[in-house]
Amino acid sequence: MEKSKKIPKATIKRLSLYYRQLELLEFDGYRMVSSEKLAWLCQVNPAQVRKDLGYFGEFGIRGVGYDVRDLQREIKTILAVNRSWRMAIAGVGNLGSALLQHQNFPARGFHFVAAFDVDRDKIGMTLPSGLRVRDIRELRQVAEDLEVEIGVITTPPSVAQEVADLFLASHISALLNFSPTQIHVPDCCLVENIDFTIKLDILTYKLKHELDE
Amino acid sequence: MEKSKKIPKATIKRLSLYYRQLELLEFDGYRMVSSEKLAWLCQVNPAQVRKDLGYFGEFGIRGVGYDVRDLQREIKTILAVNRSWRMAIAGVGNLGSALLQHQNFPARGFHFVAAFDVDRDKIGMTLPSGLRVRDIRELRQVAEDLEVEIGVITTPPSVAQEVADLFLASHISALLNFSPTQIHVPDCCLVENIDFTIKLDILTYKLKHELDE
Repeated sequence: MEKSKKIPKATIKRLSLYYRQLELLEFDGYRMVSSEKLAWLCQVNPAQVRKDLGYFGEFGIRGVGYDVRDLQREIKTILAVNRSWRMAIAGVGNLGSALLQHQNFPARGFHFVAAFDVDRDKIGMTLPSGLRVRDIRELRQVAEDLEVEIGVITTPPSVAQEVADLFLASHISALLNFSPTQIHVPDCCLVENIDFTIKLDILTYKLKHELDE
Repeated sequence: MEKSKKIPKATIKRLSLYYRQLELLEFDGYRMVSSEKLAWLCQVNPAQVRKDLGYFGEFGIRGVGYDVRDLQREIKTILAVNRSWRMAIAGVGNLGSALLQHQNFPARGFHFVAAFDVDRDKIGMTLPSGLRVRDIRELRQVAEDLEVEIGVITTPPSVAQEVADLFLASHISALLNFSPTQIHVPDCCLVENIDFTIKLDILTYKLKHELDE
């Protein structure tokens, strides 16, 4: 891959989708897949699949398609998910608990190694995963000690920025924010926001209007 | 608003963000806000704010800014969230339960009116919200009777398409899919996907590479 080339975020999202479908294809016993079929499964057009993969090299065989297993491995390398990542979560409410038990994270190499809360009734409690809930005041030290790489925020919006700052102070540079508020971080750091209600706003807008994707 | 003009999806997402920040500004006692300040709060540039709002009309006063309360009302109308929406959820696992209790949904006018599962131990159970879990086989009839408008899918990926088809059969045309798989729907219907692991893939990719937004 040419390091100098900037890749659109939408391409990265689609690579992630392609990867999921390739897993399913492998599970179903397929060894090869055409760009047309992969495109159909992912609801994009075949030219888009070829263009997205083209950023990173030549993977397919003309007229034959892609090797299902090879392409998975290539995409894993591109996305840097060919290794495991250490995550910590702040906010062990309903959503936090659900995420801690969500099987999709460990299945994809994302492991929760610590969980924090402010609630005295929760601190010290052992979660179904075996993790013990820790006092949020320990966040900075524990996250450093455990070499956490990604911080997950499931606190109420009013304290989300404060918690983000704690994560950043422990040298974590990537945050996944489930709290419905904007978090400000320095340019060196990354935040991805997951706001359910924004998705609902998009749905309701679309239900009323025509929308250009 | 000119009905003929197609609005980019990114604009709709940002309107949703502007709205959240306007709520906070009102809460903090602000009556007016400049496009610069609103832009800073939402981490976009001021020209973008003006362009996004420009699709829908003239809202600001040159040199003064926007009326915080008026602009909220306008955006609510644009997003069609100036009313309440009836939702049903399929899959009352950890994530489903967390969503059913998530205060952000009712606060924004999104109300769960039904919850479905296949698990015999869950069917008939009364949830903290007072909703009773129903047999998924009742989905089609109940969703019609209760005039559900949005279907939320929190099932395992293996049955997500089947559940989507049930929702569509009950004349629901908008789905919010939390299951990490692609759902195929006819052109007349809408799906928004929320896949946590795609966001993590984006983070890990960014941690490794430079990325063009």
